[in-house]
Amino acid sequence: MNCLEKRILKDGVVKPGNVLKVDNFLNHQIDINLLDEMGKEFYERFKDKKVDKIVTIEASGIAIAFAVARYFNVPIVFAKKAKSVNIDGDVYIAEVESFTHKNKNQVIVSKKFINEGENILIVDDFLANGCALQGLISIIKQAKAKIIGIGIAVEKGFQPGGTIIRNLGYHLESLAIVDGMNSDTNEIILRNQN
Amino acid sequence: MNCLEKRILKDGVVKPGNVLKVDNFLNHQIDINLLDEMGKEFYERFKDKKVDKIVTIEASGIAIAFAVARYFNVPIVFAKKAKSVNIDGDVYIAEVESFTHKNKNQVIVSKKFINEGENILIVDDFLANGCALQGLISIIKQAKAKIIGIGIAVEKGFQPGGTIIRNLGYHLESLAIVDGMNSDTNEIILRNQN
Repeated sequence: MNCLEKRILKDGVVKPGNVLKVDNFLNHQIDINLLDEMGKEFYERFKDKKVDKIVTIEASGIAIAFAVARYFNVPIVFAKKAKSVNIDGDVYIAEVESFTHKNKNQVIVSKKFINEGENILIVDDFLANGCALQGLISIIKQAKAKIIGIGIAVEKGFQPGGTIIRNLGYHLESLAIVDGMNSDTNEIILRNQN
Repeated sequence: MNCLEKRILKDGVVKPGNVLKVDNFLNHQIDINLLDEMGKEFYERFKDKKVDKIVTIEASGIAIAFAVARYFNVPIVFAKKAKSVNIDGDVYIAEVESFTHKNKNQVIVSKKFINEGENILIVDDFLANGCALQGLISIIKQAKAKIIGIGIAVEKGFQPGGTIIRNLGYHLESLAIVDGMNSDTNEIILRNQN
């Protein structure tokens, strides 16, 4: 088991509705030593590829991206989320629909920060249905950059996002894949990835 | 001049309406080596005090907080922003009014992540009128924790936020204080802090 899997089993809290709270160490309070270990783990999984830039999405992806970027010694770009409104300026926009909430949101990156031919490693904290991730992929394709891989902290294996992304041929690495949860017992079932 | 002041003069872009764009290195694309230097600089300025936790606000404060937290080897907590809605759960909420936009927003932190008596260093990217910062201070006071200092990357010296915070007796350190800008010439006037 890696550092994140151990920590989820130790400190993750299951709430009704298949909600896994990791706000004690990942996305509200942040354990910087855990994140450093996660950054190193992602580096080990993608170090054979050339990485020019880490791309993530605000807000909780930023800390993970920072930890990964330190190992690759490359810049971070974080995409911004917005409600569907007109945004001025020279930006890539992906409009993504939430499968769960049925509302539309925009994912936005300034054109000057993703360049044609760049090798991009996408990093984010959660992957469930993959709505935000699909928007990021769309933007990087618009920019004609190359997605060399996708690193996710926690994938919800019982939701379709991860399967879809792998079916599409992307190299997706999730540090922890949660296959089931029980909010009565706080049991968390992690996929054996070894 | 410190690392950030040099970088602002080199890569900062002035837009009409006293807008300083630093999105090339600080709050959209992030230069991790610059942030590491900034983290070290904040550490030098606050290292004589006991720091238990770094508190910031999403989104662009998170990367700076991470860089500072590595030097102090303490956790980060980032406050969430929300429109004025009811939020469930055991949280501290500060409702802050934007002086500029006249709208109200909420700054929210789970009660479990700020404890009575903890020594808090607040970190954020920008200080202009200080609306978000006032909300953070309010929350830390609600939690009966102690604000040992406030570290800001870029203070707009021609707006009142910094003066108010210093008048209130807080130890505020801004790596760069911008006293004036000209969008026609891209001139940026930094306060001499030596």
